[in-house]
Amino acid sequence: MATRPSRDALVALEKTLAATYQDWQSRGLNLDMTRGKPNAAQLALSDALDGILGGDFKAADGSDLRNYGGLEGLPEARALFAPMLQVRPDEVLIGGNSSLTLMYTTVLFAWLHGPAGAGSAWRLEKDVKFLCPVPGYDRHFAICEDLGIGMVPVAMDEHGPDMDAVERLIQADPSIKGIWCVPRFSNPSGVVYSDAVVERMARLGTVAAKNFRIFWDNAYSVHALHDTAPPLASLMDACRRHGTEDSVYVFGSTSKITFAGAGLAFMGASRANLGVICKHLGKSTIGPDKVNQARHVRFLRDEATLHAHMAKHAALLAPRFDAVLSALETELGGQGMGHWTRPEGGYFVSFDTLPGLAATVVALAAAAGVKLTPAGATWPGGKDPQDSNIRLAPSFPAVDDIRTAMAVFTCCVKLATVRAWLQGG
Amino acid sequence: MATRPSRDALVALEKTLAATYQDWQSRGLNLDMTRGKPNAAQLALSDALDGILGGDFKAADGSDLRNYGGLEGLPEARALFAPMLQVRPDEVLIGGNSSLTLMYTTVLFAWLHGPAGAGSAWRLEKDVKFLCPVPGYDRHFAICEDLGIGMVPVAMDEHGPDMDAVERLIQADPSIKGIWCVPRFSNPSGVVYSDAVVERMARLGTVAAKNFRIFWDNAYSVHALHDTAPPLASLMDACRRHGTEDSVYVFGSTSKITFAGAGLAFMGASRANLGVICKHLGKSTIGPDKVNQARHVRFLRDEATLHAHMAKHAALLAPRFDAVLSALETELGGQGMGHWTRPEGGYFVSFDTLPGLAATVVALAAAAGVKLTPAGATWPGGKDPQDSNIRLAPSFPAVDDIRTAMAVFTCCVKLATVRAWLQGG
Repeated sequence: MATRPSRDALVALEKTLAATYQDWQSRGLNLDMTRGKPNAAQLALSDALDGILGGDFKAADGSDLRNYGGLEGLPEARALFAPMLQVRPDEVLIGGNSSLTLMYTTVLFAWLHGPAGAGSAWRLEKDVKFLCPVPGYDRHFAICEDLGIGMVPVAMDEHGPDMDAVERLIQADPSIKGIWCVPRFSNPSGVVYSDAVVERMARLGTVAAKNFRIFWDNAYSVHALHDTAPPLASLMDACRRHGTEDSVYVFGSTSKITFAGAGLAFMGASRANLGVICKHLGKSTIGPDKVNQARHVRFLRDEATLHAHMAKHAALLAPRFDAVLSALETELGGQGMGHWTRPEGGYFVSFDTLPGLAATVVALAAAAGVKLTPAGATWPGGKDPQDSNIRLAPSFPAVDDIRTAMAVFTCCVKLATVRAWLQGG
Repeated sequence: MATRPSRDALVALEKTLAATYQDWQSRGLNLDMTRGKPNAAQLALSDALDGILGGDFKAADGSDLRNYGGLEGLPEARALFAPMLQVRPDEVLIGGNSSLTLMYTTVLFAWLHGPAGAGSAWRLEKDVKFLCPVPGYDRHFAICEDLGIGMVPVAMDEHGPDMDAVERLIQADPSIKGIWCVPRFSNPSGVVYSDAVVERMARLGTVAAKNFRIFWDNAYSVHALHDTAPPLASLMDACRRHGTEDSVYVFGSTSKITFAGAGLAFMGASRANLGVICKHLGKSTIGPDKVNQARHVRFLRDEATLHAHMAKHAALLAPRFDAVLSALETELGGQGMGHWTRPEGGYFVSFDTLPGLAATVVALAAAAGVKLTPAGATWPGGKDPQDSNIRLAPSFPAVDDIRTAMAVFTCCVKLATVRAWLQGG
């Protein structure tokens, strides 16, 4: 930890920082680092998708892509995305354009109909709760809120969720029916779950309630910033060793591979779990958009092509992450004003201010024209009890804009911290 | 009614028909008239969709089609499809590839969250039922079944549902929360609801429970076989006159305009109703596939282009309907062996055998290699109390195959009827 400056030095520093901040304010900036949206250059990597079929509307099995049918998706699409989900092709369901929708639907069906058929519906029980590793993804929490599911925060460290706490809570409270996980390049910390954490996750099914499920949102499965980023062990493989295949749903999409919102979403689950889901899914759709599935199969082709494509994304994202991290290092390094993660993939950097300052920093930045994810968003109910976590999303703006936004951000962190030190002692 | 042949004549007739039937059986046919699938020539009318963007991924407002955002759909898509739904553009939501999914979601949200916000959830009440005009669409009934919603059949005549019965039932039983309607070229009868029926539908909201909703599945809105087919009055316009705009959800899709399963689905609803739906929809998706919306906007362009496109569909469908109707007329006309509808649009012909014979006819046809929609499918729970209704779906097979299938079908009807006459008296 850095030594804190003297009171006089702090007063002088506050004055300088306030002047710098005012200067930023006067510039009328309008920068946005709120959400993990791909930038235009990333999206353009996949422009060839539209028109790629060249009039050939036949699936690999000769069936007509343009007509109804096929609830689980094209076999060739299931085979292509199975490695991303780390499951077998027959355990893949391709559906729609949004993995969020697949997650919402899966939670909803489990609540309404039960994840394991008759009698297993969560709604039949007095109380339903999810474990939520924090900081986490606000849209996961919003699903729970929408369905009246309680949320229990669990701390994350650099290896993943605190598994001692996870195991203890699950064994103590059978009303815990799920856990949200973003296991590779976690949102927002960028943590990759260690092999030991994956192994302990796979064992949860041996002690949890029969209708407990792990929601393994592998959104950034192939989204590394470089080739030596840590890999993730296959949860489903580990589950097979423990006979707990039914305890897990895996999710993924091409939203950050091809087009955000116009790509493919998919999930991986045991045949038993898929059977239960398809029983109800079959009542709510005549089948997914196979034309778009075929576009993706012909564009992304195989694992090598997909990997080469993701390297182009990394080349566009790496300078943006560098801009964030070098600003943090240069401006805040060694000053004891907060700490942050150094992700090797994914879409976010997680920053922690000193306790009680996150909302102030976000408000200061907003007043200077830099929009950040609302403070607290990474916690269930939008309430960070420490008021310290801020999610930085560097993917969308241009590198120069990120540099400017980070200059503003680091100024706001310093100003808020110095003022707190002056007030609080 | 025709005079029934003498017993001797019937015995001889049965012998001839049985021989003809055996002859069909020996041919190893494999024909399918089960579902309302467009044929390949119809699908090919829209092949230009793939690639139509030509690298231009900007929406009308300049935003990027390839990125996240826009829960209600592109304004230009909402404007294009508003006339089909007979609502205002700001009352349109474009979502996904399946109107069935929109219907399922809307029913589910009404059950779970309530169609009119807090306290209006159907699940809070002891019992929930839908009125089901019969014969009707099996997938509507399947939604009710999946969610444990009871179904009350209501008779249809050539003007639409029996509105005396509908009004009486709704006033007598507040547990009736919905009614399924296919108002133009009804599935399977092809009936177009009369202006008087539409008007009475619009008035239901003045007497029904506050959380009652009409599910107006206008699936065949622009699917006429010729230009002089009867139009449908706008339900939403009628509702505006009665202040009952909140009592109706309208649904449609391009599944039978462009690609079945790879088109666009949409719904129309009052701003109040859309607000309630979007509140929860916003938790389950980051937005619909705008790229595919833009493809459709640029391909279907405006009402005139859409109308010209539908005329091409009609040109492909009309000979198929003619093949069905001329076979029925030639083989069964004036014989008192059943009656049938003569639709001017849509995807089906509804045939009624004499009571008690539908399942037999369908089984006979299947044994001779002609698959028909299961008998009973047009009734809730798959149970037609008269066992008489059969849905014929002529869109998919080639005209020659339809002629063959209809020769088998009419033979089966005659055989079953003659045998019934011989047995029953």
